[in-house]
Amino acid sequence: MNYRHPGCYLGILGGMGPMAGAAFALRLSALTPADRDQDHIPALLLNDPRVPDRTAATRGGEDPLPYLLHGVEFLNTSGARLIAVPCNTAHLWYEAMAKASRAPVLHIVESVVEDLRRRGIHSGRIGLMGTEATLRLGLYQRHLAQHGYECVVPTEDEIAAYCTASILAVKANRLAEAYEPAAAGVRLLASRGAVAVVLGCTELPLAIPHDRRPEFDVVLTDSIDALALAVIQRYQADCLPASAAA
Amino acid sequence: MNYRHPGCYLGILGGMGPMAGAAFALRLSALTPADRDQDHIPALLLNDPRVPDRTAATRGGEDPLPYLLHGVEFLNTSGARLIAVPCNTAHLWYEAMAKASRAPVLHIVESVVEDLRRRGIHSGRIGLMGTEATLRLGLYQRHLAQHGYECVVPTEDEIAAYCTASILAVKANRLAEAYEPAAAGVRLLASRGAVAVVLGCTELPLAIPHDRRPEFDVVLTDSIDALALAVIQRYQADCLPASAAA
Repeated sequence: MNYRHPGCYLGILGGMGPMAGAAFALRLSALTPADRDQDHIPALLLNDPRVPDRTAATRGGEDPLPYLLHGVEFLNTSGARLIAVPCNTAHLWYEAMAKASRAPVLHIVESVVEDLRRRGIHSGRIGLMGTEATLRLGLYQRHLAQHGYECVVPTEDEIAAYCTASILAVKANRLAEAYEPAAAGVRLLASRGAVAVVLGCTELPLAIPHDRRPEFDVVLTDSIDALALAVIQRYQADCLPASAAA
Repeated sequence: MNYRHPGCYLGILGGMGPMAGAAFALRLSALTPADRDQDHIPALLLNDPRVPDRTAATRGGEDPLPYLLHGVEFLNTSGARLIAVPCNTAHLWYEAMAKASRAPVLHIVESVVEDLRRRGIHSGRIGLMGTEATLRLGLYQRHLAQHGYECVVPTEDEIAAYCTASILAVKANRLAEAYEPAAAGVRLLASRGAVAVVLGCTELPLAIPHDRRPEFDVVLTDSIDALALAVIQRYQADCLPASAAA
């Protein structure tokens, strides 16, 4: 069998939610410089939506970590050479996943920081949208402060009205309903001086589709696209031997 | 670890092309009745674009079968209980894949026939679009004739101008360029009396996005959506034990 490096993949720990996992794989493909199938990045997407709710877990619900570690181990043993997790809230368990993985695990928040810089935003007020757990536990706030940004965070009631309402609609396949709350959240953060707003839950880029983003007079940083661009950059630099694409 | 049936997945043999594989996973999620993440179908997508070109293989190019069988075996050993292959041309090797697999492998052409019936089309002229190999080797023609349909097939030159041009543009991420050739092909087949046109290569549904389909006065049957609907129906009927969703 003339099949070099058959088990040499980007591992994608998805399913959180499943549409976001699939959308990440799709955007990865769409953003990769390619002239034909064989130029794209070989990927293995574990899109298992049975992982317990991450936000509920931070309030005493079932622990998702055993599922996350099972997924990381599965991807490693299947030949993943690099791992991406297209779920922001799951990054509250990032250290445990990264420690358990032989393949490097990209950090979605670092990918978003790279994306802000790619767009020329090196300082200033950054609006944050995401799950209640992500925002309450300060996942983005810590990283953005380290990089010299100031965060604009919605209140608890605003998170419920603008972020959670939109996220839950996407998970239930009601995309049309998901748009307005998310759009209102973006406008609110812009009115408070944000120069960019992070769609910091992978459901939110599905709520505000690419073709509607020019309607906003603020930069939208999409955590799905940011992570996909980080994968492409890393892959081109050092992930797989060049002959793997043959 | 309270993780029942961790390896109980729909296996998706994708990568042919990679955007089509990811789009299939996305449409599967979008078409599944669900109120939350945990209601969706657990899926494992092997999105490996290194499989040699299927159409070229029918003209003496490298044989994709070892890659297809490797993928089928990988999905089986990883816990796939049902397998879908979102690539029409790969179904020229369907019998070998189905024979090698312990999990049942859905047939994309049968899914398209089910979709035609779901839309109330039980007879008449069906226009075919697809790769040169799919159309030349009669993959759809055989199945549709068995079910009482008559096929309208483009000529070799028309396949090159309308199908292949569009398919290659999608594989190279030039979606805007992919629309016009595919749309012209649909209009041509409609002008020859087709009551429905099969987008019988999984790149073609990406060339003609859902929101532009009402522009055509002919039914478009989308082989990605048809296969996703077949998976959902099969999954609901008998694929995984009910407790798997817990």
